[in-house]
Amino acid sequence: MKIDFAAAAKIISEQDNILILCHDHPDGDTLGSGFALCRALTAMGKKARVECADKIPQKYSYMYEGLKKEEFTPQFIMCVDVADKKLLGAMEEKYGDKINLCIDHHGSNRLFAEKTCLDFSAAANAENIYRVIKELGAEITKEIADCIYTGLTTDTGCFRYANVTAQTHIIAAEMISLGADAAEINRVMFETKSKSYVALERMALDSMEMHCGEKIALVCLTQDMFKESGADESDVDGIASIPRQIEGVLAGATIRERKDGKFKVSLRTHAPVNASEICGVLGGGGHSRAAGCEIDAPLESAKKLLLDTMIKYFNENSLV
Amino acid sequence: MKIDFAAAAKIISEQDNILILCHDHPDGDTLGSGFALCRALTAMGKKARVECADKIPQKYSYMYEGLKKEEFTPQFIMCVDVADKKLLGAMEEKYGDKINLCIDHHGSNRLFAEKTCLDFSAAANAENIYRVIKELGAEITKEIADCIYTGLTTDTGCFRYANVTAQTHIIAAEMISLGADAAEINRVMFETKSKSYVALERMALDSMEMHCGEKIALVCLTQDMFKESGADESDVDGIASIPRQIEGVLAGATIRERKDGKFKVSLRTHAPVNASEICGVLGGGGHSRAAGCEIDAPLESAKKLLLDTMIKYFNENSLV
Repeated sequence: MKIDFAAAAKIISEQDNILILCHDHPDGDTLGSGFALCRALTAMGKKARVECADKIPQKYSYMYEGLKKEEFTPQFIMCVDVADKKLLGAMEEKYGDKINLCIDHHGSNRLFAEKTCLDFSAAANAENIYRVIKELGAEITKEIADCIYTGLTTDTGCFRYANVTAQTHIIAAEMISLGADAAEINRVMFETKSKSYVALERMALDSMEMHCGEKIALVCLTQDMFKESGADESDVDGIASIPRQIEGVLAGATIRERKDGKFKVSLRTHAPVNASEICGVLGGGGHSRAAGCEIDAPLESAKKLLLDTMIKYFNENSLV
Repeated sequence: MKIDFAAAAKIISEQDNILILCHDHPDGDTLGSGFALCRALTAMGKKARVECADKIPQKYSYMYEGLKKEEFTPQFIMCVDVADKKLLGAMEEKYGDKINLCIDHHGSNRLFAEKTCLDFSAAANAENIYRVIKELGAEITKEIADCIYTGLTTDTGCFRYANVTAQTHIIAAEMISLGADAAEINRVMFETKSKSYVALERMALDSMEMHCGEKIALVCLTQDMFKESGADESDVDGIASIPRQIEGVLAGATIRERKDGKFKVSLRTHAPVNASEICGVLGGGGHSRAAGCEIDAPLESAKKLLLDTMIKYFNENSLV
């Protein structure tokens, strides 16, 4: 059942011993949502704690600093920024069918919870949590402001993406007024690269090939590169955005070797190139500007197949 | 004489044939300020035009699209985002001592104009222009919103820096509500790198050395690299920010060869390392987290001198 923010706040206010679950591979928005809500509930005199199937990366530690880890048997189970119970990861089995309330912003939410408070016009779920906290009448402290600001900025690439609305900026303004350390949070989230990432980035740039009158840029990441740099899969997202950033490039592809020897392709495009259409030819899919597919072939053959498919698309669409 | 926004608007409203000057090497904030104001004045039935000593980069062309270049003899001369008449560049001689009104946000403004409307709490001068346009009672069209949003986002690194205030976000929210193409502007300003920049970036990463337990990162840019990549001085700023971004690095230095063979050092640091103090030892200076100096010596000697100075600082401050 879908409910609105006022109804969600009313239900929460009647509960105690509240467990708040984040999605696995936690990011700034699920953690910001969870800890903002947890801090608000604790300040209201309730027992609440945040749990996540995976380890919380160190860079988010300021969100739970000074927050006492409450021990209790959960009487009310919530999840935040979780579109599907599968995203509870290792906690799915224990809690997947017992979620009383889910607060989320994904249009793809599977409505797996007993009640769902969903606004997918929100760029970050932290916007929805902000509205619930307002309905609860809880004070937004400096610590809560840090959590909400983190959700806003991480889910929007620092207010860069098309999902940002006037509401996103208005809430950010209020969080800054309430003392959120915006510049420091942005420094940690966007200005810090691991040594392994920089090493992989260097190898990626070394591997870059331009094709089709420099309208296609192709980057290759092999298992050897992952070993030599010490980078892992989580570093790939940043790399995959590089080839499309080059002036004049309409399609930027990253082809990376998996441990099983197959190749995974990430394709990012600019209009009018439809990434999903190109990847669809190779059995994959996705969105119009970001899509993917898998190719089971040796590196040179995989590259050739991908390039041939892209060049055919460029020719058919008079883009050469 | 310093005047406030209401006074600035009153003076402007009484004028016609208004010339608006931007600073040389124009950026998104001076151009956004200039074209937003020009469009507002034109809509009020006045003749106005924007001029700049240097060519306006193509990526800003949307700001003046559809704006008629008015021909007239200026009766009132303004400048926007210009802290010193020297920054008028080639236009200083003609107009430097004839500026009737300057609207600016730099604390360092030299008050060279007849009247100056200055608010240095504004992260971008576009915030001040927004306030003047509001005082003028002019409508903020979609085109003006694009100009003001451009100023906001470019002068704040997309709302990332410490200069951002609640006001910056509140004005951004209004510009988005009024139709500003925020995501597209951010894509052009922040997601696009020239081929020459990417080539120089690759060479910079290849040249990177780590010292002092990986707390110092050093990048070298030689004239050969500029020649091979096709990059120029304007590409250096982006490169200079790379070494400090690496996790654990407290001081990131970029040493680049000038055409005359001398070396220019850009030093960026994290607390507690004082960049200005280190560069001061070498005859340079700057801010605590960003400073520079020049070294007149062959590359290897210049590197050694810089590294020795940095390591001495690290030792003296128990940072090793």
